[in-house]
Amino acid sequence: MPIRRSGASRRSASLPRRWPANVEETQAIVRIANDTSIPIYPISTGKNLGYGGSAPALSGSVVLDLKRLNRVLDIDEQNASVLVEPGASYFDLYRAVRDSGAKLWIDCPDPGWGSPVGNALDRGGGYTRAQFRNHFDAHCGMEVILPNGELLRTGMGAMPGAKTWQQYKPGFGPWIDGMFSQSNFGIVTKMGFWMMPEPEACLIGRIYVDRYEDLSALVRILTYLENAGIVNGMPGLGSPLLQRRVPADPQSDAPNNASAVDQTVHDAFYAGDDAARALIAEQVKSTGRSCWNALVKFYGPARMVRMQWELSKEKFSEIAGVRFAEPEFYGFPLSDTDLEKIHKPTFGIPSLSIFNFGIRTPLRPEPLVGHQAFSPVIPRTGEAIFEVNKVFARIFKEEGLPLPPFNLPGCVWERTLMMICVFPTSKDAETNRKYRKALLRLIAESAKRGWGEYRTPVAYYDAVMETYSFGNHALRRFHETVKDALDPKGIISPGRYGIWPRRNRKADGAG
Amino acid sequence: MPIRRSGASRRSASLPRRWPANVEETQAIVRIANDTSIPIYPISTGKNLGYGGSAPALSGSVVLDLKRLNRVLDIDEQNASVLVEPGASYFDLYRAVRDSGAKLWIDCPDPGWGSPVGNALDRGGGYTRAQFRNHFDAHCGMEVILPNGELLRTGMGAMPGAKTWQQYKPGFGPWIDGMFSQSNFGIVTKMGFWMMPEPEACLIGRIYVDRYEDLSALVRILTYLENAGIVNGMPGLGSPLLQRRVPADPQSDAPNNASAVDQTVHDAFYAGDDAARALIAEQVKSTGRSCWNALVKFYGPARMVRMQWELSKEKFSEIAGVRFAEPEFYGFPLSDTDLEKIHKPTFGIPSLSIFNFGIRTPLRPEPLVGHQAFSPVIPRTGEAIFEVNKVFARIFKEEGLPLPPFNLPGCVWERTLMMICVFPTSKDAETNRKYRKALLRLIAESAKRGWGEYRTPVAYYDAVMETYSFGNHALRRFHETVKDALDPKGIISPGRYGIWPRRNRKADGAG
Repeated sequence: MPIRRSGASRRSASLPRRWPANVEETQAIVRIANDTSIPIYPISTGKNLGYGGSAPALSGSVVLDLKRLNRVLDIDEQNASVLVEPGASYFDLYRAVRDSGAKLWIDCPDPGWGSPVGNALDRGGGYTRAQFRNHFDAHCGMEVILPNGELLRTGMGAMPGAKTWQQYKPGFGPWIDGMFSQSNFGIVTKMGFWMMPEPEACLIGRIYVDRYEDLSALVRILTYLENAGIVNGMPGLGSPLLQRRVPADPQSDAPNNASAVDQTVHDAFYAGDDAARALIAEQVKSTGRSCWNALVKFYGPARMVRMQWELSKEKFSEIAGVRFAEPEFYGFPLSDTDLEKIHKPTFGIPSLSIFNFGIRTPLRPEPLVGHQAFSPVIPRTGEAIFEVNKVFARIFKEEGLPLPPFNLPGCVWERTLMMICVFPTSKDAETNRKYRKALLRLIAESAKRGWGEYRTPVAYYDAVMETYSFGNHALRRFHETVKDALDPKGIISPGRYGIWPRRNRKADGAG
Repeated sequence: MPIRRSGASRRSASLPRRWPANVEETQAIVRIANDTSIPIYPISTGKNLGYGGSAPALSGSVVLDLKRLNRVLDIDEQNASVLVEPGASYFDLYRAVRDSGAKLWIDCPDPGWGSPVGNALDRGGGYTRAQFRNHFDAHCGMEVILPNGELLRTGMGAMPGAKTWQQYKPGFGPWIDGMFSQSNFGIVTKMGFWMMPEPEACLIGRIYVDRYEDLSALVRILTYLENAGIVNGMPGLGSPLLQRRVPADPQSDAPNNASAVDQTVHDAFYAGDDAARALIAEQVKSTGRSCWNALVKFYGPARMVRMQWELSKEKFSEIAGVRFAEPEFYGFPLSDTDLEKIHKPTFGIPSLSIFNFGIRTPLRPEPLVGHQAFSPVIPRTGEAIFEVNKVFARIFKEEGLPLPPFNLPGCVWERTLMMICVFPTSKDAETNRKYRKALLRLIAESAKRGWGEYRTPVAYYDAVMETYSFGNHALRRFHETVKDALDPKGIISPGRYGIWPRRNRKADGAG
């Protein structure tokens, strides 16, 4: 039988009264914003630090914090879905599911303090099976406050008393949910999500290859295995020789510490010519480290995940000299020992330990004070990874910045390779100015090569939108037409993702 | 290496010149429509007979046939994607892929003369793995002519020279693709689709249960197996006792011939009370036929699909008395013998043999002259199937129509059960009037119970949109606001899916 939970999963009484407590209060604020023409900037938890946190695109906007709308409204075990409010964090959802006894896993990104609604609307994701780790894709049904203060439900939710709001996404007529992601067309106040039934087991396999050019075959075979439905968890790509870990590697054999690597080795990875490959081959031999490795994950019945790993090994064996590590195998519930060593989001457990990446180390005597991310979507080939790194390094050199570590895709979604290049911010304004200039150049130079960003910090919204210019900016003008029709006073998040209402718009569309 | 094909897959020279041959000519027609305020009704192949074919919602609209835009523009084997024009039929795409030598399968609905673009935009689907058989979901990237004649590209395609148009769906900023499905906001002229790599094998398993109430467990376990990633092809539900075949059953043991079943048995299925269940149990015993059966399909490596079937059998064994048929196993390429007996769309092969359902039989001396479909999305439970049938039968009785056959969901998508109830149309106007009245009542009565239609014939657009009325029709008014902003003269498909431009709109939004 479906397990149903209603009501607040956590009381909001202790949170400040200056924030709205429910949908009606949020609607009232939107109406006041309309009456007064004061722009508002809604946030769910505002914790998306690498892309701008809670900072509005337009100075003078009033931040509308939805933290008190933090209920988990429904948990349906049989249909493996939930309905949540924007202020419910991944921790809130994890606890609510666990307390309900439903045998479901959540999917969460590295920092668990964000919210499923906020991260899905920004089109972020997590680590488990492909159809769950793309959080926007995993959603089913929305409730939205429109800029005029009216309440709308999408999909089957547009039918009063709908029985399948969390089961069938598009409903009848135009499917408009995507309009509310990376946008400023409304304030999402409820969202349904599809969940993964608790698997019997998880198996993590590792593949090692030694030649520089093997990256192409590694990516090609990985793509096949994912498209064929054999590999299902988020894969990772790393380089033991470069000490670049695969993302989400629970037991890495590389410390993700590329700065400790000899500069000549690094340079060889960027160059990739015959001499460089010879040097890399030599290094592989002398250090005993592989040039590349990949991590693949399988969730499901124990026998099935073991067989999927065997099938994967057979495919990867097309690469001469490939080696495989003994796989890690996990049953559930996890033991205390497992819990200590694992990468928690791989197992649907929220955590904040990602922030360890910024702490003081022998090689970085000062802790990071912040970071920003450059995140282009690139073709799914080894060659594209090489080329991105070349462009990347050249620009950093020209801008007088230290050569960045050789990057590998940080995020592999269905069909997609995303580079997630994280840059430090500093206490030194001049250094920050340099990084900002470099990032703007990276955006423009990437666009020339057909690589577009999937998301960007607030400061670069206009620069990125500028690169999506097909048909004399037909898409941006389309967004502006919709924005002006839905939000004629321009009160919701002006400038978010490069969409400006008429009153803030320059002749060329930029803000 | 990716296989790339460019240029026309089939020359359009032989098709009449009164249809546009390319995007530019289509844009020119849209501009003329704007200048003259004459509404146009674009169709791709116009063959969607059960939902209205090429009939416009507004009389006097000029049908804009896109048949000559029939090219397969790209086939990328490594990334398993294609880029197609709206007039390219499933047959065209199948042939182009086969001729290219790419080891990819298309996914197609029963009639292969429709087009991937048209069917995806109407949110139809096919039979293979979940992420491919939902055709809108399987698309990646669009090109659209807006009502003002401008050309727009969505997703990564909005970046000139984009390298990942068919790899990453949303691009940057609002993801608007859904707005062009079941709508009249633009004319889609190109669409990318994700394809399935040719599997090593396909296994089809059958499950038989004997008690009326077993349907609940059958549906529950099927849901679990799909959500857990064990079952991946489109499942079917049938009733051997009722001689209702499972959809797409290549070797059915039931002729889908419910009209041959004793009326008292039929009545027992509708009633479902203790007496009815006793009668059904008796019938199961005396005929040796099961009460229900299910069909599950697996695509993948031979060893994997065999194991998935074993895992499925273990789960279904929770149902007392469950039995399994020896599974069908297919390797590829199919043998000529296999090709003769199979349901072709299950194997990604387009066909027109579905139209056999309307031919003359001993029990139906006159062939069908047409059909229309009633297609609600219902909860994923056996109980919902029972209730839908009860409501369905009562209305038919009250309207003086023959009791319809007991219906089982004709379409199982990820998380979704859809009833696809197909009604005959007749040469007798009075009979058609009766069916039409019954269909209108079914729409309204279903809505009262929270079941909404996913799609409907043209004649019922307004009636169905009327049922999606949350927030005093907030969704319809949202669509109208967008329609008026994008298409102020109301020239594209007025009334399609219940969206009317201002000039055709009554005060209540209906046309």
